[in-house]
Amino acid sequence: MKVVKFGGSSVASATQLKKVANIILQDKERQLVVVSAPGKRFSSDRKVTDLLIEVGKKKEENKEFEETLQAVIGRFQQILEGLSLSTQLTERVRDHIVSIVRGESDDAYRMDALKAVGEDTLAQILSLYLNDIGHKAAYVNPKEAGIMVSDEPGQARVLEESYAQLYELRNREEIVVIPGFFGYTKKDQLMALPRGGSDITGAIVAAGVKADLYENFTDVDSVYCVNPMIVSNPKEIHALTYKEMRELSYAGFSVFHDEALNPAFQAKIPVCIKNTNRPEKPGTMISAERNLTNGPVVGIASDDGFLSIYVSKYLMNREIGFGRHLLQILEEEGISFEHAPSGIDDMSVIVREEQLPPHKEELVLKRIQHELKVDTVSVERDLAMIMIVGEGMNSTIGVTSKASASFERARVNIEMINQGSSEVSMMYGVKKEGLSRAVQSLYETFFVQVSKEAERAK
Amino acid sequence: MKVVKFGGSSVASATQLKKVANIILQDKERQLVVVSAPGKRFSSDRKVTDLLIEVGKKKEENKEFEETLQAVIGRFQQILEGLSLSTQLTERVRDHIVSIVRGESDDAYRMDALKAVGEDTLAQILSLYLNDIGHKAAYVNPKEAGIMVSDEPGQARVLEESYAQLYELRNREEIVVIPGFFGYTKKDQLMALPRGGSDITGAIVAAGVKADLYENFTDVDSVYCVNPMIVSNPKEIHALTYKEMRELSYAGFSVFHDEALNPAFQAKIPVCIKNTNRPEKPGTMISAERNLTNGPVVGIASDDGFLSIYVSKYLMNREIGFGRHLLQILEEEGISFEHAPSGIDDMSVIVREEQLPPHKEELVLKRIQHELKVDTVSVERDLAMIMIVGEGMNSTIGVTSKASASFERARVNIEMINQGSSEVSMMYGVKKEGLSRAVQSLYETFFVQVSKEAERAK
Repeated sequence: MKVVKFGGSSVASATQLKKVANIILQDKERQLVVVSAPGKRFSSDRKVTDLLIEVGKKKEENKEFEETLQAVIGRFQQILEGLSLSTQLTERVRDHIVSIVRGESDDAYRMDALKAVGEDTLAQILSLYLNDIGHKAAYVNPKEAGIMVSDEPGQARVLEESYAQLYELRNREEIVVIPGFFGYTKKDQLMALPRGGSDITGAIVAAGVKADLYENFTDVDSVYCVNPMIVSNPKEIHALTYKEMRELSYAGFSVFHDEALNPAFQAKIPVCIKNTNRPEKPGTMISAERNLTNGPVVGIASDDGFLSIYVSKYLMNREIGFGRHLLQILEEEGISFEHAPSGIDDMSVIVREEQLPPHKEELVLKRIQHELKVDTVSVERDLAMIMIVGEGMNSTIGVTSKASASFERARVNIEMINQGSSEVSMMYGVKKEGLSRAVQSLYETFFVQVSKEAERAK
Repeated sequence: MKVVKFGGSSVASATQLKKVANIILQDKERQLVVVSAPGKRFSSDRKVTDLLIEVGKKKEENKEFEETLQAVIGRFQQILEGLSLSTQLTERVRDHIVSIVRGESDDAYRMDALKAVGEDTLAQILSLYLNDIGHKAAYVNPKEAGIMVSDEPGQARVLEESYAQLYELRNREEIVVIPGFFGYTKKDQLMALPRGGSDITGAIVAAGVKADLYENFTDVDSVYCVNPMIVSNPKEIHALTYKEMRELSYAGFSVFHDEALNPAFQAKIPVCIKNTNRPEKPGTMISAERNLTNGPVVGIASDDGFLSIYVSKYLMNREIGFGRHLLQILEEEGISFEHAPSGIDDMSVIVREEQLPPHKEELVLKRIQHELKVDTVSVERDLAMIMIVGEGMNSTIGVTSKASASFERARVNIEMINQGSSEVSMMYGVKKEGLSRAVQSLYETFFVQVSKEAERAK
């Protein structure tokens, strides 16, 4: 039994939905389907969910929302027509939206109810379509499915008891279509899940029914081993472990929100990332273990927008509690840190730049100066981080050596290295201007040369 | 004007003291002399200070101490006879020790007074000898010199007002001989300085008189660029910066207690480490700046006896305060940490093994498990740290690359790397068994090959 989830661009139009239906019908194991709301059809298009949020905001501001509401209805109408289905459903959807907007509930609850309309309607349409083309399918509301969540609007967490009830879905004989992105509290209040919501629903359902596979259909062929904005046509990653995926996601590398997959990872269900537009491609399989092929490095993640807070104080090394106190100041100022490399008498704390806007910088530096009596404290901006990821890499002699030679060839100075905690990654800090040169050089070393060597060995 | 300090082995016997006098008289700038107590003459010998401590302990335990006292007196007698001086002084020393022992003061104060007898007597002997061979010299007690300290027995800190008074010593015309290791409180109570006490006295005097140079005479020709126990006959370091010295001292690399030199460093007075037995050798000059010659690396420090506490927790990265909380647990248990490299969902804390004896390990791991709800927590022992030190190294592209290639050639896996905070060092963690192979390989790369290249370039 497989759980299949389709993202926003996969369900953006009738054409896309026909592909979706084909994919579902190609494999009779694909019995449970989770859908997003219709996404963008072209780059300047608007997502249905964003339109729905606009309806809610206009209501809050007592503005006219009819035009936006019409845009939502228009999208569904177009899809229904494109699938040659009756557009009767759109009337019910309109009435439903109007009743939410006019309802008495709190703004946060109302917004969640509005946001859910996109997924909910799309699930109904897909189910109608599948039946229309002669296959038994049923729309199943998350309440009926058993997705119970905490009472936290926009941030709901799935309750443990959901899983047992979801298991019952195994007994359904028709194809089950469930809208992603929302669940219900014990008091039957609709509640939206956080970012990556439909991915979460898919992962929960997969864990609940103990699926053999969770297929996550997006609009890319696979996860790439390096950012395609830096290296054109990079190699695809065909197999990843959960751990590797997690490390690669760190620097915004992922095509989806990795935390959303957690319920599937926890239940040890393999996840396959595939492309709705090219379902014949193998995609990327993410599982607990993988065969180590093609060298120890599986991918290179990178991102800029980091800064380093550097403090030095003579004999810092002898001062018990210094590092803790420094981190505590940051914590009290609501700043989350990424790494904290330390020397004998100095320590740097790496944070994302948005964590320390200029107005906060002054305050934080003053507190550090004053409370820790440091000799110097300074901030270096425009840093970038590069993460080299691969299981077992840490025990392979020579990866560090190859990596640093790559930086040298790219004429990029390594500002910092953090290695030693994780078994599956090494982190390098460089100046932003050297980022893309360094990544290209690392890609050359760990992917192009490695395959040439493998080729020659044959 | 130079301040010259002679360590315990330099003043261990009459023969040594003759060398000391020669060194002082060779350069008329050597006007201020600080001496330690007589150290060991041969490896199984006992230091005079240790004998004096034994006298104090025996008194505390109400045991007979005459024999130990006689050993102390014997040492001074031998020195006086060897220098053809009257042994009358020994009677006064004996009476002085007996009066300290019989005195009413607290154990801690008594112990400090006893410990000081070695330096105090030796300074008097050296002054007598210099006069005897026809040079004007005067023993100056630390009280007279102006060395005022806090009331912390065995741990006294120098008071700021000392420096102005010490400056007056510039006006003395004779050679001034000051006993190291102790000072006086404002209430005239004698108080011993912490470990490295005579080095501290020398540094304070040098700072106080604004000396041009502080010469620290020991029994080695210089600081070596690598541990001579690992590489035989390693190269000498002729010039070091304060910062480099501090980093090299980290792993117990130093021939002296680096913190003791701090007052001189703060006053920007250069320090020269020289050998009493071979004063013609250039020694090692430590100053605020140095010419960058012979490549970016100046030395390699290394030590074993470290362990790593590894914790992992899914989504640790998102948990503000996690790192701080972990360090706080260690702080509360009195454990000081060296480094704390972190990954996405994991963090390691490197501590010296003596900080976490087995009985404490269980408690600490339980607290981490319980308070931080981590997925895993474990301890890895038998780690060694290697510190590659050199000013400007961090901005030299390729040092990292050369270093990691050296580890690879030595077939030593790098367990962790910490680089990025200090501008002058890179830290590598390896398994203890690979330590000496790795250090030999790094020495080969950064010292043997570098000089060969320099040779060829000529």
